[in-house]
Amino acid sequence: MNLPPFSDVVYQKRRSELCEKVGHGLILIAGNHDAPMNYAANIYPFRQDSNFRYYAGIDRPGLHLLMDAATGEATLYGQDLSLDDIVWMGTQASIRELAQLVGVSTCGSPEDLNSKLERNSSGVHYLPPYRERRKNWLQKYLGHSDQPSKVLTEAVIAMRSVKSEGEIVEMERAVNTSRAMHHAAMDAAKSGMLEAEIAGLIEGIAIQAGGRLAYPAIVTRHGHILHNHDHTNELQEGDLLLIDSGAEATSGYAGDITRTFCIGQEMDDRQEAVYNIVKEAEESVIRDLRPGVLYRTYHDQASIIIAKGLKELGLMKGDPEEAVAAGAHALFFPHGLGHMIGLDVHDMEDLGENMVGYDEQVKRSDQFGTAYLRLGKSLQTGYVITVEPGIYFIPALMDQWQTEGKFKNFIDYNAVAAYRDFGGIRIEDNVLITDSGSRVLGEPIRK
Amino acid sequence: MNLPPFSDVVYQKRRSELCEKVGHGLILIAGNHDAPMNYAANIYPFRQDSNFRYYAGIDRPGLHLLMDAATGEATLYGQDLSLDDIVWMGTQASIRELAQLVGVSTCGSPEDLNSKLERNSSGVHYLPPYRERRKNWLQKYLGHSDQPSKVLTEAVIAMRSVKSEGEIVEMERAVNTSRAMHHAAMDAAKSGMLEAEIAGLIEGIAIQAGGRLAYPAIVTRHGHILHNHDHTNELQEGDLLLIDSGAEATSGYAGDITRTFCIGQEMDDRQEAVYNIVKEAEESVIRDLRPGVLYRTYHDQASIIIAKGLKELGLMKGDPEEAVAAGAHALFFPHGLGHMIGLDVHDMEDLGENMVGYDEQVKRSDQFGTAYLRLGKSLQTGYVITVEPGIYFIPALMDQWQTEGKFKNFIDYNAVAAYRDFGGIRIEDNVLITDSGSRVLGEPIRK
Repeated sequence: MNLPPFSDVVYQKRRSELCEKVGHGLILIAGNHDAPMNYAANIYPFRQDSNFRYYAGIDRPGLHLLMDAATGEATLYGQDLSLDDIVWMGTQASIRELAQLVGVSTCGSPEDLNSKLERNSSGVHYLPPYRERRKNWLQKYLGHSDQPSKVLTEAVIAMRSVKSEGEIVEMERAVNTSRAMHHAAMDAAKSGMLEAEIAGLIEGIAIQAGGRLAYPAIVTRHGHILHNHDHTNELQEGDLLLIDSGAEATSGYAGDITRTFCIGQEMDDRQEAVYNIVKEAEESVIRDLRPGVLYRTYHDQASIIIAKGLKELGLMKGDPEEAVAAGAHALFFPHGLGHMIGLDVHDMEDLGENMVGYDEQVKRSDQFGTAYLRLGKSLQTGYVITVEPGIYFIPALMDQWQTEGKFKNFIDYNAVAAYRDFGGIRIEDNVLITDSGSRVLGEPIRK
Repeated sequence: MNLPPFSDVVYQKRRSELCEKVGHGLILIAGNHDAPMNYAANIYPFRQDSNFRYYAGIDRPGLHLLMDAATGEATLYGQDLSLDDIVWMGTQASIRELAQLVGVSTCGSPEDLNSKLERNSSGVHYLPPYRERRKNWLQKYLGHSDQPSKVLTEAVIAMRSVKSEGEIVEMERAVNTSRAMHHAAMDAAKSGMLEAEIAGLIEGIAIQAGGRLAYPAIVTRHGHILHNHDHTNELQEGDLLLIDSGAEATSGYAGDITRTFCIGQEMDDRQEAVYNIVKEAEESVIRDLRPGVLYRTYHDQASIIIAKGLKELGLMKGDPEEAVAAGAHALFFPHGLGHMIGLDVHDMEDLGENMVGYDEQVKRSDQFGTAYLRLGKSLQTGYVITVEPGIYFIPALMDQWQTEGKFKNFIDYNAVAAYRDFGGIRIEDNVLITDSGSRVLGEPIRK
């Protein structure tokens, strides 16, 4: 078991603050159980619930935390090992010992928790469940699983959004392991290898560091297929290889890094020109990031740099700012500039993307492309975000837009046709918002 | 997507045979969906259901197979990609194209299947579900999820138990990748490394081969803790490192290999003596394996070799056969000799361990140790099984038995006490039962 990365006092303070924000009622922060792969006993690697990890720190299946918001009293529920279990699993810390590690003084069994939930079914705050097992459990003991608490959800988002110094240390660890993964891939990749060979190399490095991948790796010579987890292609000289992969540290914190490089040779002029536009978009945003500005503004800034660059290449035309306002750039940059990152790679996505990334001041756009931006609201000191612009040539999208005659005044479809087999380029780093601006996490990763 | 490893004719023949065995009613062979890790969209690597893979071959989430047992007609249900999906996921085979790959001529949408199940809820044969999502789905459309079909389950077990030549080829692939993993670990492991570094190295090799681990790796200097997936210890000179790890090939077939070796030096005399007993037990069984003999017999054979060897070391006493009949050897060898292996590492464990491993002729023992034997029944040509004897010194078990005064006539507890820190040794290979005896799968793995 990975030990909690912080001291008991840290967890106590987090719980007190949460109870204060919620005010009254019982607060349930449920932990995860093991998840079956191809039969009940053959399980996926255990992944603790991120909210449980934030408030109770312990990386073991089958635990739950219940707090009385009014009194601040916290109880850890779980099953102690029997002597038979100890024969098979070795001596392990008791629930009481685990609870002490994170400053919880009261313990109970899973049955204690179930009957407490049943007795108080109308007064329990819980977070939105994302696994069927938890839904079934809430349904059984509370009578519903689709009524998560808004006040609890908002309180958790407010707390987890702003990272402490200790959390930043852990996130730098995750980024530095991710850096080792990307550097190893750059050094190893060559013509004739399968994408899977690179994918295995980098996943092995994440596990060797004691953690795992924070999300399924993208390792592809078809970088324009954005949700591409296929690794069956053979690399060829001159291919652009796009790798989007990050490590999860033993503490649970994620890294999320993308690099694109050319197999076996320097990039050709066309590749280099597109690469430099993406690089400029990324670096320009990182230079300008500061608290108090809408992240949406930086998404637009990157989009305009991309539109300008593509105009210089003859692929777009007209006024770049007008093109971006209309949404024409999204043919080439159809996703958001970035998102929050922390204990989850898309931090707190289980709590609701719009609650995390938007607020009363900024609503999510419904324009194709910008609609996929996960974070629009004003940045605060202590936020950690990704910055990940890209340029892609997606045949299905090019055909669709051209057939519809979409944005003919901003896009030169004849010129674009020559890039049909280009693929895609993305560059991504993880950035902390500071009082004075921003800081890229981790040691520099080759671009 | 990994292509089906066999031709459409193979899958057609399997389905015909299954329909014939079941006779009447609808046969549902459900596929798996993606499983959420820390939020709905951050998923574990997809693992197809093994029964679905056996009868429908396709390694993609969200598919189901329904057959009319009387007519043999088969339908593949799944959702085709929309144009929007294609933008993100690239062009992919349609459900109809997938169905053709495995010789299925009729297709439908998930909604078609749901309404067909609702209309025929009393006449659907299904297999025991092991994921909550499938349980909920069966409950919703059939009104129950805990009434799997005995005739279907028995038919599937009968068919999957006997491996074809094509399946053996795939299993040898899995074993050969497992061999590369173990050899890499033997070459790399040295004092000062963390267990996790070896675990990452071998998992990376499984992924590089295009597959994955068939089950969570055991990589431990505490080999006596049988269910030990902790990898946080540092290796020390003279440690026995036990590695139980196997690859899953791209076709879904599993390898399951264990080796135990000494870190940084040759084994000392005591380690070597125990190692040689385990090795003799393994090799003696493999030499003798042949169809028509109860696997239970080989479990006893290995147990007696272990008891004899431990008597020579002064740890056991009395008559070895009597000791084994009484169950005294189980202090040192508390698990079963092996199990079937195929598309699952514990093959078909989702269908019920006793239905797979026992029959009218042989019932599972309730004696400690032998009770954990997963396979007791008579071997047949075409079975693939593991042979994995071991000797362990488990302090919790030693203390428990000594306190209870258990088997004092067979065990010299004073002598055993000197081995308290010894750890554990296991050796495991995967073996095909042939007409004339048996054959160890794969290239030889260093012992």
